[in-house]
Amino acid sequence: MEKLFIFKIGGKMLDHAEELEAFLKGFSSIQGRKILVHGGGIFADDLAKKLDIPITMHEGRRITSAPMRDLVTMVYGGLLNKQVVARLQALGCDAIGLSGADGAVLKAKRRKPEPIDYGLVGDIFEVRRDLLETFINHGMTPVLAPLSWEASGEILNSNADGVACKITEAFSGLYETYLFYCFDKPGVLLDVENPASLLAQLDRPAYESLKKQQLVKDGMLPKLDSCFRARTLGAHKVLLSTPTNSLKFAAGADYVGTLIH
Amino acid sequence: MEKLFIFKIGGKMLDHAEELEAFLKGFSSIQGRKILVHGGGIFADDLAKKLDIPITMHEGRRITSAPMRDLVTMVYGGLLNKQVVARLQALGCDAIGLSGADGAVLKAKRRKPEPIDYGLVGDIFEVRRDLLETFINHGMTPVLAPLSWEASGEILNSNADGVACKITEAFSGLYETYLFYCFDKPGVLLDVENPASLLAQLDRPAYESLKKQQLVKDGMLPKLDSCFRARTLGAHKVLLSTPTNSLKFAAGADYVGTLIH
Repeated sequence: MEKLFIFKIGGKMLDHAEELEAFLKGFSSIQGRKILVHGGGIFADDLAKKLDIPITMHEGRRITSAPMRDLVTMVYGGLLNKQVVARLQALGCDAIGLSGADGAVLKAKRRKPEPIDYGLVGDIFEVRRDLLETFINHGMTPVLAPLSWEASGEILNSNADGVACKITEAFSGLYETYLFYCFDKPGVLLDVENPASLLAQLDRPAYESLKKQQLVKDGMLPKLDSCFRARTLGAHKVLLSTPTNSLKFAAGADYVGTLIH
Repeated sequence: MEKLFIFKIGGKMLDHAEELEAFLKGFSSIQGRKILVHGGGIFADDLAKKLDIPITMHEGRRITSAPMRDLVTMVYGGLLNKQVVARLQALGCDAIGLSGADGAVLKAKRRKPEPIDYGLVGDIFEVRRDLLETFINHGMTPVLAPLSWEASGEILNSNADGVACKITEAFSGLYETYLFYCFDKPGVLLDVENPASLLAQLDRPAYESLKKQQLVKDGMLPKLDSCFRARTLGAHKVLLSTPTNSLKFAAGADYVGTLIH
């Protein structure tokens, strides 16, 4: 089977032009099939403050009002997505930016309002693989914003980790899928302050035990849940690490980071 | 030759939800190959005011500073483009939203700063027809925002009339191209207040004469220049009219509006 590399980059990197450019250079130079999924970044919050749109979070997830949905459509689907695509094109990577509405590529259902009403948030139930494959087969690189589409015609806010997981799920079986969750740590650390406490691998029983001991918590929980889901659903490799380490692994080096088993 | 319908809709329609929805319903129901180009709308100006980004115009064209370019990338490439695509998808039209950066579909050069420095404004010199054709041949409908891409990696602001003209130019010869400039008038009126003064057709000598008499002026000049350019470069029909009249003509009715000769 051919390889397909799926990279998820987070908001923090999008807010740092130099770091982003370094990543995009490395990403462009990866030969073969690849997909990029990007998150939000603090720019959306800055803009919300300027526009007096209230920011409401619940357990690290955004509650999305209608004005906030329009704002993330602008920022994620417009500014960030197009900036990344424009840079990738300049670096010789034939990128195409997509929101979930484009070609209805990420079909979602609105999350039920109980127990927490997250507002205009979508849970993706279908990835239009044929369209993404058409791009990949043309040598193009899809760049996905974390926005999904509901059949009513609404754009919904979706979690970027979840988008990456769903895309990996859709392609596993067709390709040998490599999912890279890039963030600002070298992987899962038992002690956040100590890089030497990096777990080189993590399986489900170890994860459950870490959760019980509260050694992993907060934002890491949905991220790791997505990782395990992707792995269970057929991903060949799932790595949590820095962008640099992830790019090196994709290029054939030994891995540094946390590999999910 | 097969027909290709290219519709350009302006900002005013994008600001009126009901009018936009009526147009999108009609547009969705057009059988066969079609492309939609949309303009900006007053929402970008409203947002600029809220964010204290100065709005500077010269002869009806926007002077685009870096913050204004980021703003139109958000509003045109994000909010408006994705809203239109999300609605079209709900209406059964397999739409895909594109900025000029996506697949480098609209390559542009920055306009020279003399005699007027328009800032980050691009003059399109190449349309990536093969990519648009791939979509059309898959039964998809490209929806283009008026943003172009410079090889340096910058997104540039471009005039939507010009985008529609360039796309028509690229496809004329391959298809029988129909270009519809939809706006809030039934066509070119000798007296703006009197719909009965509609010119059913306009050729270049008549246009030059109207210009001399200042019977057409302001925003109509670049629009009509684009119309004549498209026609000269091979468009089968170029019609200026309302959205409703344009849709009727596309559906096979006699035309109402100004046909360019």
